[in-house]
Amino acid sequence: MKKHNFNSGPSVLPQEVLQQASQAILDFNGIGLSILEIGHRSSWFVEVIEEAKSLVKELMNIGQEYEVLFLQGGATTQFMQVPMNLLDTNDTGSYCDDGVWGNKAAKEALLFGKVHIAASSRDKNYTCINKSFDVPSSSKYLHITTNNTVEGTQWHKFPNVSMPLIGDMSSDIFSREIAFDKFDLIYAGAQKNMGAAGVNLVVVKKDILGYVTRKIPTILDYRNHIEANSLLNTPPVFAIYVALLTLRWIKKEGGLKEMGKRSLQKANLLYSTIDSLPIFNCPIAKEDRSNMNAVFFIEDENLQNNFLELCKENGMIGVKGYRTVGGIRVSMYNALELSSVEAFCDLAKEFANKN
Amino acid sequence: MKKHNFNSGPSVLPQEVLQQASQAILDFNGIGLSILEIGHRSSWFVEVIEEAKSLVKELMNIGQEYEVLFLQGGATTQFMQVPMNLLDTNDTGSYCDDGVWGNKAAKEALLFGKVHIAASSRDKNYTCINKSFDVPSSSKYLHITTNNTVEGTQWHKFPNVSMPLIGDMSSDIFSREIAFDKFDLIYAGAQKNMGAAGVNLVVVKKDILGYVTRKIPTILDYRNHIEANSLLNTPPVFAIYVALLTLRWIKKEGGLKEMGKRSLQKANLLYSTIDSLPIFNCPIAKEDRSNMNAVFFIEDENLQNNFLELCKENGMIGVKGYRTVGGIRVSMYNALELSSVEAFCDLAKEFANKN
Repeated sequence: MKKHNFNSGPSVLPQEVLQQASQAILDFNGIGLSILEIGHRSSWFVEVIEEAKSLVKELMNIGQEYEVLFLQGGATTQFMQVPMNLLDTNDTGSYCDDGVWGNKAAKEALLFGKVHIAASSRDKNYTCINKSFDVPSSSKYLHITTNNTVEGTQWHKFPNVSMPLIGDMSSDIFSREIAFDKFDLIYAGAQKNMGAAGVNLVVVKKDILGYVTRKIPTILDYRNHIEANSLLNTPPVFAIYVALLTLRWIKKEGGLKEMGKRSLQKANLLYSTIDSLPIFNCPIAKEDRSNMNAVFFIEDENLQNNFLELCKENGMIGVKGYRTVGGIRVSMYNALELSSVEAFCDLAKEFANKN
Repeated sequence: MKKHNFNSGPSVLPQEVLQQASQAILDFNGIGLSILEIGHRSSWFVEVIEEAKSLVKELMNIGQEYEVLFLQGGATTQFMQVPMNLLDTNDTGSYCDDGVWGNKAAKEALLFGKVHIAASSRDKNYTCINKSFDVPSSSKYLHITTNNTVEGTQWHKFPNVSMPLIGDMSSDIFSREIAFDKFDLIYAGAQKNMGAAGVNLVVVKKDILGYVTRKIPTILDYRNHIEANSLLNTPPVFAIYVALLTLRWIKKEGGLKEMGKRSLQKANLLYSTIDSLPIFNCPIAKEDRSNMNAVFFIEDENLQNNFLELCKENGMIGVKGYRTVGGIRVSMYNALELSSVEAFCDLAKEFANKN
């Protein structure tokens, strides 16, 4: 039975990326060694990382004022690494609190400086993005989560602010054309739209670094990674290679314009189907709905469990909502085919008709 | 031409591990999904990480007072994470300075507390392990690097100390039977004897944690990872799976006893050959020579370059010494076959006879 992978991350990858990655483990580019066995300072790997960096810049359409880093530890590591590098003890960092991850990022910053919550949709149970924020002009930065994986909301238009803008783009990076150059620092775990778990991307404008007075551990100072071209210590070689394969695939398929088009097509189909079936309830404000993660509910919990069970029986993986939210979550990342959303919608209609 | 992979890390892996890893990328255990596409909280992956943890304990022969963690960021991250978790501002951590990595670990600890250099072989150009160390009894711990990858030295017998003993075992973990329970905290990057780059192992006695007063960022506090069973955030799923495959291979081949036997056989052959050929000079104190990384020189630099070139022509990868040391380095990790060392020794003899 064909599997439909709606996982929220790690998640579905393009079949050709999987085939290339599998082959590279047996023999990388015909050199007689596995990608897992080559040195990270070999010309073989230096070419991999340089091409990956260059593709990131090309897809983002950003200039040489930005540095591209491949680091470890996931976005959760960035929650603390960002304020450690940018926020002095008496400085204030502003955060938009529109979901559990943004909330965690703000809490982590409290270890390093002052935190101002610029806006929050917490009182609305995170069912929307609160876009009426207020940011003190002295803020060192404003941090937003561009897509809330858990709650199913997404920023569709970005704010203009006078201070550096920082985006956690873990769950929607490379899924659409946006003005990346509005941001001064972007970070994202790879395991949704950019590859496999084990690496995270950091794109940073050099000129915002170097202003804090604290001593930063060597491995956590962005400047050291910039200076060492992401080869400060042994990087996650294979995870970076899978990211390169995925970036190549995105470019070959038509780049971010095409990804955005496909994404909109899948999301429109999903939301219009759910909205047309009274058994399902999507509480997310229409203008803020995520094109990556659709979160919705069946009020009757028994019925909801039956539906989740039916999904499983039909080879649909990962449709159970996040543990703290419950309900149903359908993640529709770049590599998810429209046919999987169609299969889900057919099943949802069939279930609704029967119940 | 068959490649002989003498890389210092990332390095050679068992062929069957590569085949299993390659297959799992196409289809993991016949579930119809790639190992790169499964959720880290799925029962599929929880079984992987639990088996890996259990194999670590079995191979180390350690009890339930130890916790096994799979973290990210490499040993370099541990250089700061260890003192961050164990050393208060006024505490002293003692370090044995027998190579560049131990030296870096000590420097990183200076950011968190006081550092006492218990012994150093720096004045001997790191050509031996200085075993006459002095450790103030008030030291919070003694840190040693069990194998110095760059310089080619190794601790063959471990000291008895009254304070917690911490071992950076990045380049010789699982290569021999040792009394792991002499250590209170062990860490190691996976990319030498335990798998591919992208994950590091931390084995820690719970009871040494929780005594520092500083606030530790969530992701850097060992206790949070213990509580979350290494699933605090998305772990490097594939790198942990390759570690599991490698641990299974070690057990199947006969465990650490067999690894130690093979390792000794390879090292004895290598060192006896080099010592018998006057053109080569191994300056490392005989009793401290590493069974993992043999470091030696040809005095005439032109001749040395010719030899390195000859190695390359004969499919021998990674025999050039570390950039700061120069010379020749032959790394002989678990997965390196004796036949590769034999091939190297034959070439060395042939070269010596001709020159």
